[in-house]
Amino acid sequence: MEKKIITISREFGSGGRTIGRMVAEKLGIPFYDKELVDQIALESGFAPKFVEEHGEHSPGRSLFSYAFAPQGVSGIMNGLSTADFLWNIQCNVILQLADKGPCVIVGRNADYILKDRPDCLHAFIHASMPYREDRIVRLYGESEKSPAARLQEKDKRRRVNYQHYTGRSWGQAQNYDICLDSSSIGIDHCAQIIIDLVKNSK
Amino acid sequence: MEKKIITISREFGSGGRTIGRMVAEKLGIPFYDKELVDQIALESGFAPKFVEEHGEHSPGRSLFSYAFAPQGVSGIMNGLSTADFLWNIQCNVILQLADKGPCVIVGRNADYILKDRPDCLHAFIHASMPYREDRIVRLYGESEKSPAARLQEKDKRRRVNYQHYTGRSWGQAQNYDICLDSSSIGIDHCAQIIIDLVKNSK
Repeated sequence: MEKKIITISREFGSGGRTIGRMVAEKLGIPFYDKELVDQIALESGFAPKFVEEHGEHSPGRSLFSYAFAPQGVSGIMNGLSTADFLWNIQCNVILQLADKGPCVIVGRNADYILKDRPDCLHAFIHASMPYREDRIVRLYGESEKSPAARLQEKDKRRRVNYQHYTGRSWGQAQNYDICLDSSSIGIDHCAQIIIDLVKNSK
Repeated sequence: MEKKIITISREFGSGGRTIGRMVAEKLGIPFYDKELVDQIALESGFAPKFVEEHGEHSPGRSLFSYAFAPQGVSGIMNGLSTADFLWNIQCNVILQLADKGPCVIVGRNADYILKDRPDCLHAFIHASMPYREDRIVRLYGESEKSPAARLQEKDKRRRVNYQHYTGRSWGQAQNYDICLDSSSIGIDHCAQIIIDLVKNSK
C-alpha cells in the first residue's frame, strides 16, 4: 500500500519536527506543523498561541476553562471542556488535511486520528535525555527551569494528553510503523530512512 | 560510536528471528539464537528444551520449580527459583558472548542485559495480529488453540518476563534504537535498514 500521509510523533527536543520538515521537502509535499495550529485556531476561535500550548497538553477540566474561550465560542462548546472542544476540532482538521492529499503532519496525535487510513506511515522520534537537554537549550535558550525539568514536564503533558484521548500508551512501538532514536541514528539518517520507506511503498 | 552487537527483540511471529539471521549473514558475524539456548542449558544443567520454554516466559515461583532441576543443580541454585537461576546464567552468557566480538543476539532480554554497552544497536520487531497469525500457522502449523490465542499467550509471557527482570515496559520505543513493523515494512527492508545503520555507524 502506497504511503501518502506521514505522521511524525516526537519527544520534545528529539528533532522530530526537523525530520518531518526534511521528509516533506525531499518528497515535495506539504508540511503541517504551525499551519495545523493556525487552522485549529481559525476553526475554534482561540488564539494560535493558546492552541499551541494546550492542544497537546493535559486535558484541562478546570473551572477556568471557559474563561479562556473567545467571545462567541463558549456558546458552541456545548458544555465541553476547552481541551475536549479543541480535540474535536483538531480531529476534524487533521482528517480534512489528510483527505486533501500527500503531506507530513507533526504531532497532535495524528497517528491515532488517522489510524484507520492504510495509506499512512506513522513514525515516532525519541532521543536520550542528554541529547534533548543540549538541543532545547541551543534552540530555545535557557529558562528558569533546568533543561531536564522542562523535558520531564513536556513529556508528561504529551503522555497524559495522548493516553486521555487515545486510550493508548505514549511511545508504544506497536502504534507506529517505525520508531527511531535520533540521538543514536542522527537526524539526517532518520529522515532518509523515512523517505526510503515512502518511496519503496509505491 | 560503531555498533558491533545487534540485539533483536521481537513479538512472536513477527519475523524478528529471520531478520536477525539475514543481518548476521549480510554482516558476516555470528547469530545467536538456538546457540544461546544451548549455552545456557550447558551452564545451567537444564535441558535445552526446558531453557527454551522457560527463559523468556513468566517468572515461575511455584513450589514445583525445584522438581525440574536436574540432579546436582538444585544444590547450587542457592534458594533461587528456577526462573531466577536461569536469568542469572542468561545474563552471564549474553555478557560473555558480547565480549567475544560482533554478533546478532535474538531475544532473551539482551537489549536490557547489554544496555550499558554503547557499541550495541537495539532493535524491536513487531507486526500486526493478522500478519503474525498467518505466519505462525505457515511456519509452525496449526494447534489446538487458535493462532490469536497462541499469540496472546506468548506476548503476555514475554511481556511479564521482561517487566519482571528489567523493570521496563515491553515494546516501549525509548528502550530501542529502532522499532519496525515488519508487516508494514517487509522483512527484507527491515533487515536492510538495520544493516545500513550498522554500516553507517563505522
